[in-house]
Amino acid sequence: MSVFEPRDPDFRARVTASFARQTAMATLGVTLERVEAGVIEMAMPYSAALTQQHGFIHAGIITTALDSACGYAGFSLMPVEAGILTVEFKTNLLAAAKGERFTIIARVIKPGRTITVAEAQAFAHESGASRLVATMTATMMALVGREGVRD
Amino acid sequence: MSVFEPRDPDFRARVTASFARQTAMATLGVTLERVEAGVIEMAMPYSAALTQQHGFIHAGIITTALDSACGYAGFSLMPVEAGILTVEFKTNLLAAAKGERFTIIARVIKPGRTITVAEAQAFAHESGASRLVATMTATMMALVGREGVRD
Amino acid sequence: MSVFEPRDPDFRARVTASFARQTAMATLGVTLERVEAGVIEMAMPYSAALTQQHGFIHAGIITTALDSACGYAGFSLMPVEAGILTVEFKTNLLAAAKGERFTIIARVIKPGRTITVAEAQAFAHESGASRLVATMTATMMALVGREGVRD
Amino acid sequence: MSVFEPRDPDFRARVTASFARQTAMATLGVTLERVEAGVIEMAMPYSAALTQQHGFIHAGIITTALDSACGYAGFSLMPVEAGILTVEFKTNLLAAAKGERFTIIARVIKPGRTITVAEAQAFAHESGASRLVATMTATMMALVGREGVRD
Repeated sequence: MSVFEPRDPDFRARVTASFARQTAMATLGVTLERVEAGVIEMAMPYSAALTQQHGFIHAGIITTALDSACGYAGFSLMPVEAGILTVEFKTNLLAAAKGERFTIIARVIKPGRTITVAEAQAFAHESGASRLVATMTATMMALVGREGVRD
Repeated sequence: MSVFEPRDPDFRARVTASFARQTAMATLGVTLERVEAGVIEMAMPYSAALTQQHGFIHAGIITTALDSACGYAGFSLMPVEAGILTVEFKTNLLAAAKGERFTIIARVIKPGRTITVAEAQAFAHESGASRLVATMTATMMALVGREGVRD
Repeated sequence: MSVFEPRDPDFRARVTASFARQTAMATLGVTLERVEAGVIEMAMPYSAALTQQHGFIHAGIITTALDSACGYAGFSLMPVEAGILTVEFKTNLLAAAKGERFTIIARVIKPGRTITVAEAQAFAHESGASRLVATMTATMMALVGREGVRD
Repeated sequence: MSVFEPRDPDFRARVTASFARQTAMATLGVTLERVEAGVIEMAMPYSAALTQQHGFIHAGIITTALDSACGYAGFSLMPVEAGILTVEFKTNLLAAAKGERFTIIARVIKPGRTITVAEAQAFAHESGASRLVATMTATMMALVGREGVRD
């Protein structure tokens, strides 16, 4: 359920294809779970190879998934000829990323011709319970007609 | 050369040991190049397994190194009994992370008993030239006497 | 309606008294409209004396109200002996602050013994319509036993 | 001394005229002290009418000056036909804004055709000593050909 009208009716295929080219997603085990107009959901398992010093998932790794989720939430609303670039993001780490798996949900809060703003949340799931562990606000820019950044 | 007085004279050993426990650093190929009181330098090679959709290093991966650099810059100034937690960070992506290798430098701008603030920069190196590609401001908290977060 | 349990049953009186001491609020015309546990609502009229170069309210003025709203949302959940300090905030300006009056609503998303995180939104009201013009994420710290910062 | 080449040789006049239209600056007592290509310096006296609850200048008021300083640092490098819009900013409050007067300095760290990023610092001056009290990173957008936002 989304309040945004996508400018490209085939946005799901475009998002899915671009996501598949992000090799970092495969390396981190991040999967694309849901693609709506302006809304993206991703999942990521725990990996002992991606931790900080206490054995929890590194905040930067959670941030990598949050950034991709915000980016594709914005990208889903852009016209077919546009590429997307993250201008900046801010992450608050609310709790250690301690869990067996993680889900990330991003939503556009302000789409725009040039600038799009999205917010995202990361949840840790452990022993049947879930907990909000991080939030992101991200600013993205649509790029039209620049070689090498399309899609 | 640093303007800060470390509270633990053995801060280099403490930083180095904690960094070695961050499995994410080895997985990403990040190395610790310099440890001063309040200043950390890291390096990271290009990896085709860590890219976004255009083949450049994913902004979240650069952010992972920036976050660790800020964290250890803060950690280097903390007393021996303190653990460290990142409260939040903000990253500006100034240019695509296009390069053969990357260097990250973090400096504490405000140490504190509870809250420490650091700033960091990431540079991309390519064909002998270097370019500022990202900046971070990070807020960290010292934790004393909490099981499981020491070091 | 709030999901948080206040530690001080008289939090409304404490918030109201502290707000009254913020001379900036009176100077900007900001009023406290609602105080719940973890939720604050404020209002502000348009003022020709507080604009940027195009005659709209300056983003920093909107930010001043957002910061106070986040601060008091956090403060409402703190124990009676605690003072509060804003550690940092981030504001996204989604549209020009063009309107006859503005409302600001802040909610705590993560209360904590030391660190509390809140989010806030500012809406512009004009000709019967309202529009989201700015968002804030703010990090606050509780201070106990420090002279001069109580309340 | 600046490393940036302004695209409008008359940038000083353009910045000064736009600043004069920001009524918030006069209301807050903020003055424009220095205009270089990509660098802005401002000053602000203490005012008992602009405080938070402990009698120090409200963080949002300091932020208002930081935002204008970043904005004009960016604006000084833009072509004559461009307006400027702040997209977002992030402020770290490093110490209470306790002082007789304050100075703000902003510098562009990345100019761009569309997006410009600047950093700024606020210093409090008291009894002959000065102290860094706040930092800002701000993202601005150049607007060309949009009615009502020029200058």
